[in-house]
Amino acid sequence: MAKNTETAITPRRAENYPEWYQQVVRAAELAEVSCVRGCMVIKPWGYGIWECMQRALDQMIKDTGHENAYFPLFIPISFMEREAAHVEGFAKECAVVTHHRLELKEGRLVPTGELEEPLIVRPTSETIIGQTFSKWVQSYRDLPLLINQWANVVRWEMRTRLLLRTVEFLWQEGHTAHATHEEAQSETMQMLEVYRDFCERFLAIPVVVGRKTEGERFPGALETFSLEAMMQDRKALQAGTSHYLGQNFAKACDIKFLNQAGEIEYAYTTSWGVSTRLIGAMVMTHGDDNGMRVPPRVAPKHIAILPVLTKEGESERVLAYAEKIASMLKGQIYYDRPLVSVVDKRDLRGGEKTWQWIKRGIPLRLEVGPRDIESGQVVVYRRDEEPRQKIFMKLEEFVAKVPQLLDEIHTSYFDTALKFKEANTHREIGTYEDLKAFFEDERLGGGFVLAKWCEDAEVEETLKELKITIRCMPLEQSNTSGKCVVTGRDAVKDAIFAKAY
Amino acid sequence: MAKNTETAITPRRAENYPEWYQQVVRAAELAEVSCVRGCMVIKPWGYGIWECMQRALDQMIKDTGHENAYFPLFIPISFMEREAAHVEGFAKECAVVTHHRLELKEGRLVPTGELEEPLIVRPTSETIIGQTFSKWVQSYRDLPLLINQWANVVRWEMRTRLLLRTVEFLWQEGHTAHATHEEAQSETMQMLEVYRDFCERFLAIPVVVGRKTEGERFPGALETFSLEAMMQDRKALQAGTSHYLGQNFAKACDIKFLNQAGEIEYAYTTSWGVSTRLIGAMVMTHGDDNGMRVPPRVAPKHIAILPVLTKEGESERVLAYAEKIASMLKGQIYYDRPLVSVVDKRDLRGGEKTWQWIKRGIPLRLEVGPRDIESGQVVVYRRDEEPRQKIFMKLEEFVAKVPQLLDEIHTSYFDTALKFKEANTHREIGTYEDLKAFFEDERLGGGFVLAKWCEDAEVEETLKELKITIRCMPLEQSNTSGKCVVTGRDAVKDAIFAKAY
Repeated sequence: MAKNTETAITPRRAENYPEWYQQVVRAAELAEVSCVRGCMVIKPWGYGIWECMQRALDQMIKDTGHENAYFPLFIPISFMEREAAHVEGFAKECAVVTHHRLELKEGRLVPTGELEEPLIVRPTSETIIGQTFSKWVQSYRDLPLLINQWANVVRWEMRTRLLLRTVEFLWQEGHTAHATHEEAQSETMQMLEVYRDFCERFLAIPVVVGRKTEGERFPGALETFSLEAMMQDRKALQAGTSHYLGQNFAKACDIKFLNQAGEIEYAYTTSWGVSTRLIGAMVMTHGDDNGMRVPPRVAPKHIAILPVLTKEGESERVLAYAEKIASMLKGQIYYDRPLVSVVDKRDLRGGEKTWQWIKRGIPLRLEVGPRDIESGQVVVYRRDEEPRQKIFMKLEEFVAKVPQLLDEIHTSYFDTALKFKEANTHREIGTYEDLKAFFEDERLGGGFVLAKWCEDAEVEETLKELKITIRCMPLEQSNTSGKCVVTGRDAVKDAIFAKAY
Repeated sequence: MAKNTETAITPRRAENYPEWYQQVVRAAELAEVSCVRGCMVIKPWGYGIWECMQRALDQMIKDTGHENAYFPLFIPISFMEREAAHVEGFAKECAVVTHHRLELKEGRLVPTGELEEPLIVRPTSETIIGQTFSKWVQSYRDLPLLINQWANVVRWEMRTRLLLRTVEFLWQEGHTAHATHEEAQSETMQMLEVYRDFCERFLAIPVVVGRKTEGERFPGALETFSLEAMMQDRKALQAGTSHYLGQNFAKACDIKFLNQAGEIEYAYTTSWGVSTRLIGAMVMTHGDDNGMRVPPRVAPKHIAILPVLTKEGESERVLAYAEKIASMLKGQIYYDRPLVSVVDKRDLRGGEKTWQWIKRGIPLRLEVGPRDIESGQVVVYRRDEEPRQKIFMKLEEFVAKVPQLLDEIHTSYFDTALKFKEANTHREIGTYEDLKAFFEDERLGGGFVLAKWCEDAEVEETLKELKITIRCMPLEQSNTSGKCVVTGRDAVKDAIFAKAY
């Protein structure tokens, strides 16, 4: 495939972005549709990325004092009834277990053993974990309670898309209880910051952190904060959320404690989560027309070593050289994780093998042939460069330089994404007319519009016309006053307006 | 509590073993019953043990060439119908999802949105993973396919017991497909050996590995192999299984490939798993009348440092000394994992704190007071010794010796369990009369009876009278002939007869 003429993925991003996304997920072997409606299979390369993400984030969650635990998959219906907004938010899309047995009748299995009270498969665990917390908390001495869970959850979405919106997905959900409003709020902000740091430092995804509008809050929360990332089609993707729940769930679940003044009080709780959706976010942030580009710090493997076996009789020497390189790399640490290289010995045509690794998005590729043995060199390809861009290095130099190369690739992905986000964040749009013109004109391509909002909920209704939403009010506010971009009324809040996933 | 008079757990093992077990699980904060029938909450200390187990076993699974992936939680009913024995084994106890929405009617939530085809929550994933494999495998070049999944599964057990038998539990399930019968069989045996090594080297649980009888096989398997451990009440506990499935599931799921001879053939598959049940097995193998004893190689924390704050005004110095010890321990590696110590500064009465750590079963405990600072020493308590058995050591000596101490504790747990198993494995019982007398006499206490079996399935029916089963035919066979302990007929197979969990 010649540079700039053909690409590994058809169609290109510019031609049909949604279809390009599906093709990259497939070509990179990240995930596939299963035979169960809306549920996905996460394939080894995709799951490997998830494992690297889990490992890094889990450590950050533990470093901030949280412990992991595990709570039931099922929630009795009556628990959901306790928090009115929560019911509203989740009842419409949940898997309901009504029976506990199957019987063969006329050759077909049919459900029997009806449950007295149906159970729902957890869409999120505030109610079931809250119920447990109510048993664990008696006194202020039992607080704060800082718990995290890695789990699968189910939301019966009607329109699904691999990794971005699926009926079942994997996530972590943090749930904490505190003695004071201030402590719980500060926990909410701390975890938002942990997520920002994680997204930027590991996934190379720049994000805007901000407060959600009332209409976009988590059902039952007093405040929801989110991370908003910009995909390459300039739409926003919510990459994670952190909720301050006040005493709502403590009241619904009866989490009470004896405070230092000797009075019984309801606890203040928070919850926060990120999911396998972030893998989709990485595809849409970093992928190019040749496939996935995995940020090095969450790459299951960092380096593919491809022996070039052209001449008869030289295979053994070349394979030995490839193995020697792998063994020299072994034991090195990159970003707190052992460096992983793979010698791909499979009997495939050279091009097929090369392109498979490019499409998967491995950060570094080496091609080694007979000539390299004599000269003690390697031919290095970086995934952040053009597929045929060779770098000739002495073997020792390469081995010593791997961490630096990986850091450079990380930085290049992050900088590219940051530049793209900045270039497509518009601060000059001040009237509804301009806003409308901007989002309706396909040629302008969309993006984030940072403008004033008068904080009237009616505005969000109006925005539905343009198929956009207020993504968040960034934590970083200009603190100037101006006119609301929708109503023209006086306004002080900066908000981000965008189309979103 | 004075030695040999009082213990931390009531009742003692000897008084009421099942109740002792429940009390240890509770006192060690491993798990608790949830408000959802049969489902448990795994508490941080218990989940921390599971994380250590996962980490070690996951590496062993990867080192033998397997990759992790993730498959749907739900299985369409029709998939279950495909393998007759599988239906038989699992249909009687499964959670069935029949609806995908809840609606408020007269103030109560009721299920609506009935599914065309009900889904079951996976009790095990042979059918859903097999369905996926059928898409992944076309040619012998795609084989072997070596996949593992860490997941939750649900079996609607009627009689549940924390960690040992619960409606929902966590496990790993390996699923592999191979081009030949021999390869698949060798995979089955390899994973059995991985489990044996894991149980003995990490959990300090000695096991007997062997083949199950036909009646005890996994539904749909041609051969099931298991690990059988002996609990302190002398009953057997199945600690893990590895199944050779032949072509049964390949036929049910249509996993076909073009072999090297150019013919279409069904693949040969295996599956194997261990679960959170192993935490229960550790409690019942190593626990004593003072609570849990966690084997050091899967202990979430290795050392509890307890500052003794008796005199006013000395707290700061003692705390500083405790922190100094912790920082000296930091960065050390024990068995491929960083050493974890905790300075327990909580404001609790000294005895309460000490006993909490004893009941949790932390391997090493240090008590440090003002006098230790001057002498530069520490008072060390090992969990494999009596609670009040002090060891005085110089601080530097202790720090240098921690890995050795932990290894000694591991070995002491393993040796104690092995001795117990050997002492309670009876080779002298040769007739049904003796077998009956042995298992009916409570004073003899039960155990493993290693005796001959004529391989007649009828025998297993007879054994129900004694409430015992054939646990397995050990891989290590004496290769002598003798008389079946039940029928008196000529027999060559050695088998283990025991009561079991």
